[in-house]
Amino acid sequence: MTATYTPGTPCRLADVPHWDAETDVLVVGFGIAGACAAIEAASAGASVTVLEVASTWGGSAALSGGEFYLGGGGGTPVQQAAGFEDSTEDFASYLRLSGGPGVDEERVGLYAEGALDHFRWLQEQGIPFKGTFLPGKWLEPMTDDTLIWSGSEMAWPFSAVAKPAPRGHAAQMEGMGAGKVIMDLLAERALGLGVRAEFDARALSLVADTDNAVQGLVARIDGQPRFIRARKGVILCAGGFICNQEMLRRFAPEALVAAEVPTTGGNDDGSGIRMGMSVGGAVSHMHEFFATKPLFPPDNMVRGIFVNQRGQRFINEDAYHGRICRYILRQPEGRAWLLMDNAIFARPDFRPDIDIAAVGESWEEVETDLGLPAGELVHTVERYNAYAEAGEDPLFHKHTQWMQPLVEPPFAALSFCPEDYPATGFTLGGLTTQPTGEVLDVDGQPVPGLYAAGRTTCGLPRWGEGYSSGISLGDGSFFGRLAGRTVAARPAADSDSDQAA
Amino acid sequence: MTATYTPGTPCRLADVPHWDAETDVLVVGFGIAGACAAIEAASAGASVTVLEVASTWGGSAALSGGEFYLGGGGGTPVQQAAGFEDSTEDFASYLRLSGGPGVDEERVGLYAEGALDHFRWLQEQGIPFKGTFLPGKWLEPMTDDTLIWSGSEMAWPFSAVAKPAPRGHAAQMEGMGAGKVIMDLLAERALGLGVRAEFDARALSLVADTDNAVQGLVARIDGQPRFIRARKGVILCAGGFICNQEMLRRFAPEALVAAEVPTTGGNDDGSGIRMGMSVGGAVSHMHEFFATKPLFPPDNMVRGIFVNQRGQRFINEDAYHGRICRYILRQPEGRAWLLMDNAIFARPDFRPDIDIAAVGESWEEVETDLGLPAGELVHTVERYNAYAEAGEDPLFHKHTQWMQPLVEPPFAALSFCPEDYPATGFTLGGLTTQPTGEVLDVDGQPVPGLYAAGRTTCGLPRWGEGYSSGISLGDGSFFGRLAGRTVAARPAADSDSDQAA
Repeated sequence: MTATYTPGTPCRLADVPHWDAETDVLVVGFGIAGACAAIEAASAGASVTVLEVASTWGGSAALSGGEFYLGGGGGTPVQQAAGFEDSTEDFASYLRLSGGPGVDEERVGLYAEGALDHFRWLQEQGIPFKGTFLPGKWLEPMTDDTLIWSGSEMAWPFSAVAKPAPRGHAAQMEGMGAGKVIMDLLAERALGLGVRAEFDARALSLVADTDNAVQGLVARIDGQPRFIRARKGVILCAGGFICNQEMLRRFAPEALVAAEVPTTGGNDDGSGIRMGMSVGGAVSHMHEFFATKPLFPPDNMVRGIFVNQRGQRFINEDAYHGRICRYILRQPEGRAWLLMDNAIFARPDFRPDIDIAAVGESWEEVETDLGLPAGELVHTVERYNAYAEAGEDPLFHKHTQWMQPLVEPPFAALSFCPEDYPATGFTLGGLTTQPTGEVLDVDGQPVPGLYAAGRTTCGLPRWGEGYSSGISLGDGSFFGRLAGRTVAARPAADSDSDQAA
Repeated sequence: MTATYTPGTPCRLADVPHWDAETDVLVVGFGIAGACAAIEAASAGASVTVLEVASTWGGSAALSGGEFYLGGGGGTPVQQAAGFEDSTEDFASYLRLSGGPGVDEERVGLYAEGALDHFRWLQEQGIPFKGTFLPGKWLEPMTDDTLIWSGSEMAWPFSAVAKPAPRGHAAQMEGMGAGKVIMDLLAERALGLGVRAEFDARALSLVADTDNAVQGLVARIDGQPRFIRARKGVILCAGGFICNQEMLRRFAPEALVAAEVPTTGGNDDGSGIRMGMSVGGAVSHMHEFFATKPLFPPDNMVRGIFVNQRGQRFINEDAYHGRICRYILRQPEGRAWLLMDNAIFARPDFRPDIDIAAVGESWEEVETDLGLPAGELVHTVERYNAYAEAGEDPLFHKHTQWMQPLVEPPFAALSFCPEDYPATGFTLGGLTTQPTGEVLDVDGQPVPGLYAAGRTTCGLPRWGEGYSSGISLGDGSFFGRLAGRTVAARPAADSDSDQAA
C-alpha cells in the first residue's frame, strides 16, 4: 500500500482494496468507554473487535483513582451503608450545575435516573466496592474504603442547589490507583465474552461511503494498513486530545497550561475526534478542560485562604480542587497564594516541596514579602478572621467547618503560581453525540454508522469549573454502555456487499 | 426538484441535475468581507457572483459604526494629521494581546504590516476619511470626525505592552452609523467592476465531489433551487451565528446572554459555518463572543468604579466597554454596579433610563441599599479614593486621568445587572482558515475550492476580552480582500466538465 491515511480524511469505500477482517461492532480504544461499549455489544450478541493503540488495555482510566460518580434513587448501597441518603433530584441538580452554561439536560436526566442500576452493573462485572466511607477531603481513598466526597457537594454554590451527599465510589484497593483494578476486571470481562482485541493497533482513518456513512476503518497493525469492516458500526472511544499540542493550540489554547503535566495514559492524541470530524461530526466545548493543582490532602489546607496578586480572595477554599485551579488560572497572571497560620500550617501531600513564598510574624510582613499592594491582603485576612469568628462567610460562602481565624504567628503564603506549581489536566471538548452514542453533524443529524463515548465526546463533564472526581469514569462507563447497546441493536449491513473491490 | 438541501450536508456533484449558472468566483454574503472579496476577485479579472440572502447589500456591517481598526508604519495619514505616531511593532503588540490565548500570530503579522496599504485601498474605493481626531471616549464618532480611541489602547494591560495610539478610523459622516456609507460605496464599486449580485438568494448547500472538493453551490432563488458552478472557488462571507439559538446552545452557550439583543443585520444564522463544516472544515473558538453594555459616552462614567456583589472592584474602568462587559458577565450572577459621586454623576447616553439601584448620603447607605456584605464596598471606595489621591491604582492600574476621589454626596450605584441592562453582541468563533482564505480541515489541510472570511471564520478578533471597535470591519475587509485575490489566482476548472449530468 502506498496510500497514506490520516484521521482527518476518511478513506472512501471505493478506495478500499479488500476487507482484511469483518466484525459487527468495531470499538476504537480499550479504555473505560471502549471496554464498557464492548461488553454491552458482546452481551447483546454482536461480534466485537476492539482496537487499542497501546500494548495493553486501560487507557487513561487505568491510571486514574478508579472512582465513579454515582448516587440518587435514595442512595447506592455504599451510600446507604455509610448512612447517606441521596435523592435522584438532588443528584440531578448537582450534575446540572456541574455541567455549566452548556449543560446537556438529557444526559443529566439519563445518568441521574440510571446511576443506581449502573452501580449494580459495575458490581456484576466484578468490581469490588467495600462499602465503607472515608471522611474528610481526599483526591482518592488511600485506604481500602470506597466512598469519599469527591466534588464540590458540600461547597457553595453546589450546596445551595442540592442536598450534599458523597458520591465518589472507588473500587476497593489499599493505596492509590484503583483505575488499574477496574480496567483489568472490565477488560477480562470483555475478553471472556468473546470480544476480540487488537493491541498495538493504530486507527488511521474511517472508511465511509460518499454520503459519509461509516462502513469500517483502516488501522495500522503489524506495520500494515488493515481494512476492517464494521457491519453495525464504529464506536470511537479514543480519549481526548491533551497529548496533541497542535490541536490544543488551535482548539483549546487555554488548556496548554495543563499540557505540561497532562493527566493521560499517553494516547489522548485527538485521533478519535479528528476521525469523527472527517465525516462531518460536529464538536463542541473544545476549549474546555479539567485542571488541578491539588491543595489537599491534608484537609488542613482548606482552612487557609487563597489570595491573588491584588490581595483579594477569589473563591471559597472548600470547593473541589479542580474548581479552585480554574479560578486560580483566571486570576491576574494566574498567580495565587494560600495563606496559613501556624495553627493550621501544612503542605500538600502531592506537593510536599511547595514553595513557601513568604513567612512573617504579622500579615503585614507577608503582604510586603509578596510585594502586594499595601493593606489589601491585611484587609482581606482581617475580614476573613471576623467572618470566621462570626461563623459566616458572606463573600464566598465557605462552609464554617473549614473556617477559623488565622491569628497564630508565624504566618505563611504557599505559592500556587505557575512557575512553582504547574497544573495537570485533560480536555473536556469533543464530538457532539446523542446520549445513546450517535455522532451528530452540525445540523444535529446522526452520521450513519458512527458512534462515540468517553472523552472523545463532549459528554456529561463539559465545564472545568464544575468537574468532580469520578465523573469521567462515570460518564465513560455509562454512556459507553449505551453506545454499545445502540450499535448492537442496529441491523448489520449485508456481509456480501459488492462495494468493496 | 423534490430534494431538500441544508447547509450541514453537501450536495454531491453526481446529484447536480444541471448547472443553472457558472462563475469563476462565487461569494456568499454581501457584507464587508464579501464586498471586499468580490472587488478584489473582479479586479483580478475573474467573473464574480455574489449571493445575498437579504434584499440588498450590507449585512451586519451596514448597521455598524463604520470603523476600521488601523495603524502602524509610523501612522496612517489620519493618525499623522492628528499628531499620533504609531509603529507597526506597537500595533502588532496590541493586536497580539487582543487576540487572547489563541492569538493567530500569522494574521496579526500580516494585518499589522498591511494596514497602511489597506487604508489607502479603502480610500481608493471612495471611502471618505476627513482626517480629524475626536478626543475622549466614544463608541463611534457622532461628529464627522474620523479618528477615535476605539479600544483599550490607553488602558492596562494593553498600555503596558504597546505605546497607545487611537486606531478607530471611521468613515466621514455626521451622526452615527457610518457602516451604511461604507457598504454603499463598496457595493457600488463591486457592481461597477462587473460583479453580478443575486439578492433574496439563500445559499442552501455546497456542491462537492466525493473528496469534499467544492465545485459550486445550491441556492434558493425565486423559490427554486439553483445550481451554480464556481470554476475557481466559493468564498463564504456569510457572517457569524448570533441569530441561531440552536447553534448558540450547542456551541456558545455563554453567548446566549448577548442573543437577546444581538448585534446583527439579521442574517447571522451560522449557515456559512455550517456549510464549511459539511465538507470537513474545522471550527475554532466557537464559544467566544463580543458583548457590551456601553457605559460611555459620556466619558464621565469612566470616573466611577464597578463593584460586584461582594463589594469588590474587578477591572480598570477605563478599559474598552466590551472588555468591561465580559468581566461583568463573569462576576457572581453577572451582577455589577457602577458607583459615582455627585461630582461625576451621569447616565450612559445609550441607557439614559439606567436603573439607579441605590442612592445615599454615605457609601455605607449605598452598601446597605444594595444589600452587600457590610464594610466591603466601603473599604473598596476608601482604598480607591486613597489611590486616586495618590495618583496610582496598584490594584487595577486605571489611568490616573480617569481617577478622582468619590467624596461628594449624594452617592449612587447604577445597575449593570442582567435584568436592568442586557448585553448586546455577536459571535467570534468560526471556520479555521489560512489568512489567505483557504478553509482548513481538522488536520490543517485546505478543503479544495473553499474559502472564507469575516465572521464566518475565526479571524483576527477571537477573544471577547480583547475586542476593539473597528476590528471586525478591519478583519473582514482585509482578509476578505486576501481571499478574493487567492481565489482569483486559482486555475479555473474546465468549464466543459462532464461531471455534471
